[in-house]
Amino acid sequence: MKNIRAAVAELHAELVRYGLVVWTAGNVSGRVPGEDLFVIKPSGVSYDELTPENMVVCDLDGNLVEGEHAPSSDTAAHAYVYRNLPEVGGVVHTHSTYASAWAARGEAIPCVLTAMADEFGGEIPVGPFALIGDDSIGQGIVETLKGHRSKAVLMQNHGVFTIGKDAKAAVKAAVMCEDVARTVHVARQLGDPLPIAQDDIDRLYDRYQNVYGQRSPR
Amino acid sequence: MKNIRAAVAELHAELVRYGLVVWTAGNVSGRVPGEDLFVIKPSGVSYDELTPENMVVCDLDGNLVEGEHAPSSDTAAHAYVYRNLPEVGGVVHTHSTYASAWAARGEAIPCVLTAMADEFGGEIPVGPFALIGDDSIGQGIVETLKGHRSKAVLMQNHGVFTIGKDAKAAVKAAVMCEDVARTVHVARQLGDPLPIAQDDIDRLYDRYQNVYGQRSPR
Amino acid sequence: MKNIRAAVAELHAELVRYGLVVWTAGNVSGRVPGEDLFVIKPSGVSYDELTPENMVVCDLDGNLVEGEHAPSSDTAAHAYVYRNLPEVGGVVHTHSTYASAWAARGEAIPCVLTAMADEFGGEIPVGPFALIGDDSIGQGIVETLKGHRSKAVLMQNHGVFTIGKDAKAAVKAAVMCEDVARTVHVARQLGDPLPIAQDDIDRLYDRYQNVYGQRSPR
Amino acid sequence: MKNIRAAVAELHAELVRYGLVVWTAGNVSGRVPGEDLFVIKPSGVSYDELTPENMVVCDLDGNLVEGEHAPSSDTAAHAYVYRNLPEVGGVVHTHSTYASAWAARGEAIPCVLTAMADEFGGEIPVGPFALIGDDSIGQGIVETLKGHRSKAVLMQNHGVFTIGKDAKAAVKAAVMCEDVARTVHVARQLGDPLPIAQDDIDRLYDRYQNVYGQRSPR
Repeated sequence: MKNIRAAVAELHAELVRYGLVVWTAGNVSGRVPGEDLFVIKPSGVSYDELTPENMVVCDLDGNLVEGEHAPSSDTAAHAYVYRNLPEVGGVVHTHSTYASAWAARGEAIPCVLTAMADEFGGEIPVGPFALIGDDSIGQGIVETLKGHRSKAVLMQNHGVFTIGKDAKAAVKAAVMCEDVARTVHVARQLGDPLPIAQDDIDRLYDRYQNVYGQRSPR
Repeated sequence: MKNIRAAVAELHAELVRYGLVVWTAGNVSGRVPGEDLFVIKPSGVSYDELTPENMVVCDLDGNLVEGEHAPSSDTAAHAYVYRNLPEVGGVVHTHSTYASAWAARGEAIPCVLTAMADEFGGEIPVGPFALIGDDSIGQGIVETLKGHRSKAVLMQNHGVFTIGKDAKAAVKAAVMCEDVARTVHVARQLGDPLPIAQDDIDRLYDRYQNVYGQRSPR
Repeated sequence: MKNIRAAVAELHAELVRYGLVVWTAGNVSGRVPGEDLFVIKPSGVSYDELTPENMVVCDLDGNLVEGEHAPSSDTAAHAYVYRNLPEVGGVVHTHSTYASAWAARGEAIPCVLTAMADEFGGEIPVGPFALIGDDSIGQGIVETLKGHRSKAVLMQNHGVFTIGKDAKAAVKAAVMCEDVARTVHVARQLGDPLPIAQDDIDRLYDRYQNVYGQRSPR
Repeated sequence: MKNIRAAVAELHAELVRYGLVVWTAGNVSGRVPGEDLFVIKPSGVSYDELTPENMVVCDLDGNLVEGEHAPSSDTAAHAYVYRNLPEVGGVVHTHSTYASAWAARGEAIPCVLTAMADEFGGEIPVGPFALIGDDSIGQGIVETLKGHRSKAVLMQNHGVFTIGKDAKAAVKAAVMCEDVARTVHVARQLGDPLPIAQDDIDRLYDRYQNVYGQRSPR
């Protein structure tokens, strides 16, 4: 639990570093391994003030279990994801500029970069318009991402949710999502990006999921 | 008074952090509770050199009451707002890029993001073209924002003024204003953002004003 | 001389801070009061390594007078300006992105922002295409700016040169030039900025030159 | 070897400083003088954690010779370049936004800035679409850059590879490539940049290669 608190608190610094958030408008959560609990950002607290201690612990219905602050106002969406996608260990939400711009038009980001094929295995899809306050956002995330290779969804007129095997993987997906959203946007401003054949996308995705990065330590 | 001086001095760092200002072109002020006074940035002093001590105190007519420096050249506009909107405790002025670009076209920012509905409750309106030197700018701000949900106004060909219950709230509005100005601009570059129904805007605004953030400490 | 060396060395940090330069592609110089000399950046030295000691001193023909490094490759242009515009005490050169983009199209930046009227008194003009290696660039700068209110010139397909009463004023002009170049660019991407009447530009310019900032210390 | 390890590790900080990379998506390598070896970034390790010690040494077939981590997944492309271009002492790969956007459209960057003529001697060319996993990327780089003045190639739908006489020169080319990719993009958004005559491009390139920067120390 202590480790998850520390990891979730620290990972918010990556959202700041990559310019994905302003003020308090974005949050990271991480599932507590072996328990029906997750750690999430407290609501309305600035990124500079986050510590392992002021992180908040919730159960999978989004109820506060441990913490001196109220949980993020997006807690219900995170909880719905953990409840319905047991393989997910981390969730991130941001309003990062370029991804949110695609979301405002309700337009999926086409897969025209090898880095996108690597990380997302195809386009980044759009989820429905949904109001905060009940399970609508969570349902929209899960319905869009279930069975999809993409770990990111653009919620219409809203922003991005990403998932991962742990909080760090979800943060990486949020960083990469904004990066490709920006590059494809810039490419499209002056013409049409060239498509990548589906076969090549499949090969890139398969390789990246199985080969990239450090293997076991030695 | 000491607290307000410190808060106003420190809050300028947020304008720098979020890239809303260059050189000395932006300023924060805060009303002194219970007195007909406000604290404001000294004119032409760089953000690195701001301290609680070199902040300037003015009365509600914009006259210098306390301070070794001349007050910001935008002081008359701040003073007019405090004189005419008693519920306002903080005012911010910037020339932030995207908001000023909408202002240069004299075009309101349409409410196509849930974060905009939350914070501004609708579009961010345009105020008149007004010259510095008398009450024209102040009048333009007050006439545009009086009875409007938005805490930000785009002054035509000029920049942004935001208001809030205190200086921090006005700074937050300035940060959010630039953020949504940028995202909606980017969205519009490649097509038309999808509208959000007025009913949904109303629900989001109402919820955010009443539910978001930390309640009383416990 | 020691003060000018320190000021010129330090002012390069402002070019970095505001993102006006990459690698070593930009330079500041300052005239030595009462002497036919100026201090300028050494060529090909990174901004992190600049110190008062490694600054270079040249005469008004651009000849090296003092210093262990070769002077900036733009020294001839700076020298020409000091030789021909005796009121100029500082010169800055950058390839800042937005200003250079206007320069690449050979298009003056129209005065559609009050901040532009304040600082530049009208449009920012374009100078000729000129090769490095003789006085062509210097001549282009002087011919364009002589008798013009603007302290900045966009040299076609090249970048920006700015002048000022001292090095700090020239750096401020470079910072403001990029800021308005970016804002007007962004405004134009989605339509036509509204014009400002010439009378109003004149009033703003006159006021800013005579009223703004701190008067004499007290 | 120790020096090359330290230089390659440190130079990654320049990719971060100029915003050319996010997460772990970019890498620098440097040839070990007098040996058929090169030093390269370990795969999947974050830029903050790079040290001279965790750099990886490979032979010119891309086989791991020394190091506790797996080499960058782009090692085969770096190796192919060192094997086939003996004058190259450094290679850099990034997915920097604006260069990658030109690459996504498969469009060369036209030489419309004097800084581009200086550094690249003409347009920045596009290389073929190539999958990771064999020598395809390396071949595409070498075939495109062999006999070309440009030290940068835009690999279609992928990103940028740059070469140089050492790792630092290749990093400089990567920084300048993104800078001109961005400026020319911005210029093109509002019209057509003016061309530079081939003769002038030739003169600028020749001068910059032979005159710029510090001569031998004295």
